[in-house]
Amino acid sequence: MNTYQILIEYDGTNFVGWQIQKNGISVQEVLQINLKRILKDEITIYGSGRTDAGVHAIKQSAHFKIKNQIKNKNNFINSLNFFLTKYNISVLKIIKKQKLFHARHSAKKRVYKYFIKNRQASLILEKNKAWHLKKKLNIDRMKKGAKILLNTNDFSTFRSSSCGAKSPIKKLDKVKIKKIKDKIEITFVSKSFLQQQVRSMVGCLKYLGEKKWTVDQFQKVTLSKKRSLCAPPAPAYGLYLSDVKY
Amino acid sequence: MNTYQILIEYDGTNFVGWQIQKNGISVQEVLQINLKRILKDEITIYGSGRTDAGVHAIKQSAHFKIKNQIKNKNNFINSLNFFLTKYNISVLKIIKKQKLFHARHSAKKRVYKYFIKNRQASLILEKNKAWHLKKKLNIDRMKKGAKILLNTNDFSTFRSSSCGAKSPIKKLDKVKIKKIKDKIEITFVSKSFLQQQVRSMVGCLKYLGEKKWTVDQFQKVTLSKKRSLCAPPAPAYGLYLSDVKY
Repeated sequence: MNTYQILIEYDGTNFVGWQIQKNGISVQEVLQINLKRILKDEITIYGSGRTDAGVHAIKQSAHFKIKNQIKNKNNFINSLNFFLTKYNISVLKIIKKQKLFHARHSAKKRVYKYFIKNRQASLILEKNKAWHLKKKLNIDRMKKGAKILLNTNDFSTFRSSSCGAKSPIKKLDKVKIKKIKDKIEITFVSKSFLQQQVRSMVGCLKYLGEKKWTVDQFQKVTLSKKRSLCAPPAPAYGLYLSDVKY
Repeated sequence: MNTYQILIEYDGTNFVGWQIQKNGISVQEVLQINLKRILKDEITIYGSGRTDAGVHAIKQSAHFKIKNQIKNKNNFINSLNFFLTKYNISVLKIIKKQKLFHARHSAKKRVYKYFIKNRQASLILEKNKAWHLKKKLNIDRMKKGAKILLNTNDFSTFRSSSCGAKSPIKKLDKVKIKKIKDKIEITFVSKSFLQQQVRSMVGCLKYLGEKKWTVDQFQKVTLSKKRSLCAPPAPAYGLYLSDVKY
């Protein structure tokens, strides 16, 4: 059997998420159906991790195994994207891997980006692509919050009640807040994340930025390990799975 | 009478362009109808210049005159955008100006940006927002072309046959090519541009980048003043009016 990794971009707006589900169309399902169509073989795709409904991917990673080798990778990508584009999915790259490669288990780092447009006027060019916040956010305070998150190891506060992970203990490698004009980009890097962790952290950073919370309050909520104290999670459409590193 | 400048963002995809025309909906028309509705006054909007069908604006500038003053600018913008958002137009800002201010005549510089995504895979997150070119472009050669354009003063080669400008003589202040990953951003700054000048220059830079032309050939075409030698203009959906300076 041959193991292939594929890198995938998608607009999450019309999907129930990455993972195959009964209640609607998922990215995984569309990919799997069309890979079978092109490869004329039974295959199963394994993603680096789930993305929630509405979350986008700049570069999701997945793998599958097939009997035959894929000889012309460019042709393969072109044929596949011919079918995928109308679903707002595009396969960026296909890479042959060693047989033990696993998109989820072999992943060393996941990189997520969250985009906020901080201005009064409605969004047009970035509609459904960034969180629109009218109230002016204080970036210095948000950066203090980012430092607190970086030093946290129990993320129970930021964990969805339906999260299936065994432990809420995680290590964030990076939380970086960058502002260019009215656009705020928050980058999160970690080996792995809890369900809704990024969106929950962004929701709390927003409370801090708009001075609904002091830095002290932000820290107390973070350390409380109480989901009930968490700010409402930021909307899915501002979130992007940006990279998966192996 | 009071003179007001407005700054406007729009997605040009579904418009016949900025200027009011008989054959479809223009940005100017939608703005004018909704400004009249909000201001309850007869007004005429003057833009800094036309953008062609499909061209976007990050920051178009326009002005109008009214009898009364606009007291609460934030309310004004919110009410206006309530009606405009569904057309993919958003008013970013409104600024009171001296009575002689004219969005077109007072403009000192126009800044246009052209975006290219240079990769094999179909575009998803930037569909209709950048020109998708699969063949790898040579940026160094394109930068040489940019220098040639910067030293040009007769732009007849790059002028649409329907251009109504009196003279093809222009001075480009800046042509800057920047590549970040697979995205190429080309910035053009000039007091004013001929019709289709930017898209025609980008079309020729593309021929240079994909080695269809040598730098010598690019220079000959530029100096020829012959429209017939120009490469096909780049598509409208990659072009953005980015700023107008006064």
